[in-house]
Parts: sequence; C-alpha cells; structure tokens
Amino acid sequence: MKKDEAIDVVRPHLKQERFDHTLRVADTAVALAEKYKESADQMELAAILHDYAKYFPLEDMRQIIKESDLPQDLLLYHHELWHGPVASVIIASEHGITDVNVKNAIRYHTTGRAGMNQFETILFIADYIEPGRSFPGVKDVRETAKTDLNSAAQMALSNTIQFLAGKQGTIYPDTFFAYNDLTMRLNGGHGIHG
Amino acid sequence: MKKDEAIDVVRPHLKQERFDHTLRVADTAVALAEKYKESADQMELAAILHDYAKYFPLEDMRQIIKESDLPQDLLLYHHELWHGPVASVIIASEHGITDVNVKNAIRYHTTGRAGMNQFETILFIADYIEPGRSFPGVKDVRETAKTDLNSAAQMALSNTIQFLAGKQGTIYPDTFFAYNDLTMRLNGGHGIHG
Repeated sequence: MKKDEAIDVVRPHLKQERFDHTLRVADTAVALAEKYKESADQMELAAILHDYAKYFPLEDMRQIIKESDLPQDLLLYHHELWHGPVASVIIASEHGITDVNVKNAIRYHTTGRAGMNQFETILFIADYIEPGRSFPGVKDVRETAKTDLNSAAQMALSNTIQFLAGKQGTIYPDTFFAYNDLTMRLNGGHGIHG
Repeated sequence: MKKDEAIDVVRPHLKQERFDHTLRVADTAVALAEKYKESADQMELAAILHDYAKYFPLEDMRQIIKESDLPQDLLLYHHELWHGPVASVIIASEHGITDVNVKNAIRYHTTGRAGMNQFETILFIADYIEPGRSFPGVKDVRETAKTDLNSAAQMALSNTIQFLAGKQGTIYPDTFFAYNDLTMRLNGGHGIHG
C-alpha cells in the first residue's frame, strides 16, 4: 500500500485533530527510520495507519478482539488499549498488509512489549514525542531519541507507569514487561529494586 | 514457636536498628490482626521472623534460592528481594514452621503478590507503616489501613511502583501483579489505562 492509499484509508475514520497527529507521527517516525536505518516507506505506512481504529465503536472492537488471536485479557483493560491491536488485525484482513514490522509496530504502539525490535520502538517513540505532545518529561525523551532509542523508550514507559500508578490505574502487563525488559538491558542485565 | 523463642532466633541475625523495626512491625501487625480478626499469635510470629534473613550473606541466599522451589527469576532482581523468600524457606527447614499464612506472609512481605489473603496483606502493610517509617505517602496508607486493608496495600504498591519507575529501577513482577490485582478489585473488575 502506498502512502496516498493509506491516507485515503484512515482519513474517514479520524477527527481532524487526530489526523493531524497522525501526520506528525509519520514525519517523526520517518526521520527516526532514516536516522536508524529502518525502511522509511514501511515506517510511514505503519505511522499513517497506527490510529486507524482509534474511533471504531467499542462494540465493534470488542467483537474483533473476541474473534481474533489477540490476547483476550485486553478486554479486562481500558478500551484505549484496544485500537492498536484491532488495527493490526484489520489492516491485514481488510487491506492485505502482512508486513510483520508494520503489523507489530501498530499492534504495540500504545503499550509497548518486551523485546520490541528497533522498528516497533521507533513508532512507539514517535507517537510519544511528535511535536504536538507536551507530556511532563517529553522533552527529555525527544532529546534522548536522537542518540539512544532504547533509553528513550524506557523513559517513556517509566513516565507512563508513574502516571498510571499515580492515578491508581491498572497497567497493561505488556507495558510493565516492556519497561522491565529495557531497564534490565540498559542496566546490563541487572535490575535495581529496593 | 513462641514469641520469646522467635526473638531468640532472629536477634543474633539483626542489627539493633533492624531489631527495633521488627518489634514495631510486630506491634503494628498484631494490632491490625486483632482489628481484622486474624490470629494475633501467628501474626506476631510472622512479624518477628519477617526480616530473619535480611543480613544473610548474599552467596548463602543465592545458594538457598538455587536449591529451593523458589522462582529462580529472583536471582535476576535486586538482592533486597531475596530475604523474604529465603526466610520463608529457612523457618520451615531449620525451625519447623510450616503454617502457610506465616510462611507466605514472610515470603511476600517485600514484593506483595496477586491474590494476597488478609493475613499476608496485614504483614505487608505493617512493614510499610510501622511508626518508624516516613516514606512520602505513608501517612495516608497508615490512615487507610484503619478501615480498608486492600486500599492501603494498593496505595503502598502504587507508591513503590512510582518510586522504582522514577529511579529507572526494575520492578519485580509480583509487585506489579499485586498492584494490578488490587486495583482491578477496587475498581470493581475494571482497569483504568490510557
């Protein structure tokens, strides 16, 4: 699928504000892909499609998850976590996109997961740092992404976990395991706890 | 084992400061046990023994974990997490204490775990709120423990997770799952994430 086709696919499903966010994520992700030697075309495709299911009706998403191979525990967590996995299914079944990197980058763009490859990590970070974002701590992540993708992703995950724990929210296990995985890798295999 | 015997067992293994902490945990835990109708005698025993292995040599703890049925992934995390599980093994093998509540309360007193029963929860909280503690947020947990043990434990776990994520430390999975479990139970089965 070409860029223009992908835009035609998602545009009807997104509010203007979300569509603008999508284009900023695509610019950010493509720049990182070029810097870190990933396929810019595939990255652009993944970025344009990443929020495809963002405004799908909840009942449709619930049904798609139930009928898919996706983990069913998603349904126990906030529906904000559903659109990435759902989009990864729909782009394959309805639009024939089977590239594993594109699918996984879209699937895990909200939660992250342990063992993310560089392609997935870039989309995860681009969604977090695109110029429209102003979370506490985003500037540090943006700066770090210029030199170290894993550190940037770990900082973003740390921020997310602190934010969710601070508002007494549940944390999807993939997010927790992504954080621990990167933290251990960055600490040279040793954790810090206590 | 009687209280005096338990004190004789642990005292040689603890610095004065840690022994004083142990007695404060015991007072706090016994008061909560009486309030929430758990066995005060068993709770006192668990509390007195909870830090038994705190200053065991690291190599001894590592060996005990390796030769036990304890999860081997403990060895990938900070050694501060080892003393509870190690003590739960030693009090059984060397002192014949097989009471499941006493063993599990000691084993999980640092990390917590999903599905903690009320007995375990009390020791976990007592260790966190004993009067010598002055963590940020401890006053709220202390106050909440008077009326709602699960909320108190969830607050303590939330604080711990935020603390660890804030210093880029790994988080033992039991701590994460304890937090998510209590958060889901307190939210009536629904998570909040996003």
